[in-house]
Amino acid sequence: MDVAALAMGVAAGDRRALARAITLVESGRADHRGQALDLLARLRAPGQPAAGRQALRLGLSGTPGVGKSTFIESFGLMLTAGGLRVAVLAVDPSSARSGGSILGDKTRMDRLSRDPRAFIRPSPSQAQMGGVARRSREAVALCEAAGFDVVLIETVGVGQSETVVAEICDLFLLLLAPAGGDELQGVKRGIMEMADLILVNKADGDLRPAALRTVADYAGALRLLRRRPQDPEGFPKAMPVSALAVEGLEGAWAEMRALAAWRRETGHWQARRAAQARHWFEEEVRQGLLSVLAQGPARGRLADLGAAVEAGRMTPEAAAAEMLRGLA
Amino acid sequence: MDVAALAMGVAAGDRRALARAITLVESGRADHRGQALDLLARLRAPGQPAAGRQALRLGLSGTPGVGKSTFIESFGLMLTAGGLRVAVLAVDPSSARSGGSILGDKTRMDRLSRDPRAFIRPSPSQAQMGGVARRSREAVALCEAAGFDVVLIETVGVGQSETVVAEICDLFLLLLAPAGGDELQGVKRGIMEMADLILVNKADGDLRPAALRTVADYAGALRLLRRRPQDPEGFPKAMPVSALAVEGLEGAWAEMRALAAWRRETGHWQARRAAQARHWFEEEVRQGLLSVLAQGPARGRLADLGAAVEAGRMTPEAAAAEMLRGLA
Repeated sequence: MDVAALAMGVAAGDRRALARAITLVESGRADHRGQALDLLARLRAPGQPAAGRQALRLGLSGTPGVGKSTFIESFGLMLTAGGLRVAVLAVDPSSARSGGSILGDKTRMDRLSRDPRAFIRPSPSQAQMGGVARRSREAVALCEAAGFDVVLIETVGVGQSETVVAEICDLFLLLLAPAGGDELQGVKRGIMEMADLILVNKADGDLRPAALRTVADYAGALRLLRRRPQDPEGFPKAMPVSALAVEGLEGAWAEMRALAAWRRETGHWQARRAAQARHWFEEEVRQGLLSVLAQGPARGRLADLGAAVEAGRMTPEAAAAEMLRGLA
Repeated sequence: MDVAALAMGVAAGDRRALARAITLVESGRADHRGQALDLLARLRAPGQPAAGRQALRLGLSGTPGVGKSTFIESFGLMLTAGGLRVAVLAVDPSSARSGGSILGDKTRMDRLSRDPRAFIRPSPSQAQMGGVARRSREAVALCEAAGFDVVLIETVGVGQSETVVAEICDLFLLLLAPAGGDELQGVKRGIMEMADLILVNKADGDLRPAALRTVADYAGALRLLRRRPQDPEGFPKAMPVSALAVEGLEGAWAEMRALAAWRRETGHWQARRAAQARHWFEEEVRQGLLSVLAQGPARGRLADLGAAVEAGRMTPEAAAAEMLRGLA
């Protein structure tokens, strides 16, 4: 593979080159890994056109049924109509098990996928969580290098994927559906901690009153939580939107830009990016060291000793000491 | 040191032996570590009197000023008056920096510390977070082996310490102060996720109306969150208490016992203990592997490369590859 030519294609904003570059960083093959590192280094080398490019990275979480694809389609089309280039990626650890993919079906976002200013990338179909994190992070970096203005990173509300997205994105959006009466929302508790903006979708027609009530409920809940240093007065915020009726999206985008601008002015933006980069460096080092546990005979011994501990036949300390003796 | 005699003393419930045993597991010396592992193994060996003992492990979190020591004193005295033996431990990573100790001053719990059915252990004054976790977990195991009925693990609302306590305890209590009017509570968002019972303290005198309002606010916020499989209907719950006037404590204790009984009947209790044991085994193995990063020249190189990544002079991937090459 001609990595230099691929880097030039990505830097020129060519969508086919970008798609090939993402396939390269997603590959599990060792020779591909070397090429991927070469590609990323070339794109970020000082003096290269792509080196200083920064997109606005938006994380978007929401359980199935809240209208995430409709939101991405409407929101994305609004941005491209304004002249912005938009990339959409997915972080989807569940697809590792099901073999499916939350963005596999591009027809979910029919108009956006045909928009020349948009780039939509389905989630990789096979990956472990650690791998998902690395690939997603590198795919975001590639989209930035390709000159996209906004990178939307979609995830579903399962386990660790939100944490990964929070460590990649600049702003974290939580999309909710209106709650009917006493119905519960089912928001995973830890996710509220990450949200910069809570958007209650379907605020149209019959559901509008319920959506406004849900907004008030979450606004109240947010006020009970501690103000984070990275938030100006009034954030995190809860707002109603309708992806279907295309209402409230301009207002939500204005809030995102205001929050991003505030964080840039106060240095929180740069500090978060720097801390994220360091986090990913240390995470790569740790994953590299721990990878010995996932391979060969160590993997089986970890499972066996873990089962003995779970069953109460060994203490955690004794089992760990035995495991580490075998690795030394 | 005569480990066999120490084990017998702990198993007999002798408080001086227990204090010496905790000092042993807290020690950083390699020869002490071997003795500590020997001690823990002896206490849990099948057929030994202490082997099957299980205390109710209560995690307790709350920011300074909510009345945590008064609560522990009143709650602890209520339990000992009922014939139960109570141990109080602290998980306090902040003391690692300050050199202080949240439970260093036993006069904070004057009457409880003189109660023959109670055992109060100040937090160790010097420790890294990984060390804090191990020591706390082992100290809890020693209190269980010594036949205590309830082990209260106190922590302050900083960073990782709640996560550690959640991985040690059976039930997690969050103690809050009443909020006055629109005043914010300052609850760290992730902590709400762990709480089994939210206790709003100072529900006495002039503060009682504010405490009841705060209870209602949190009850509302809890209803917006997803029901966890380990919770029966109605949990997590928010309740008013007054540690000073000794009101609501019997009711809170009844809720704890009801929740604990439900989890025992449904198997969630045993499943949580087994999962915690496996977690600590794997954590010990990971810490053992990663300990190379905290020592010798690797430590300096990790810091240098991390700084280069933070400053944008190196990519996370390239820096990690260089770090791992040096370790191989």
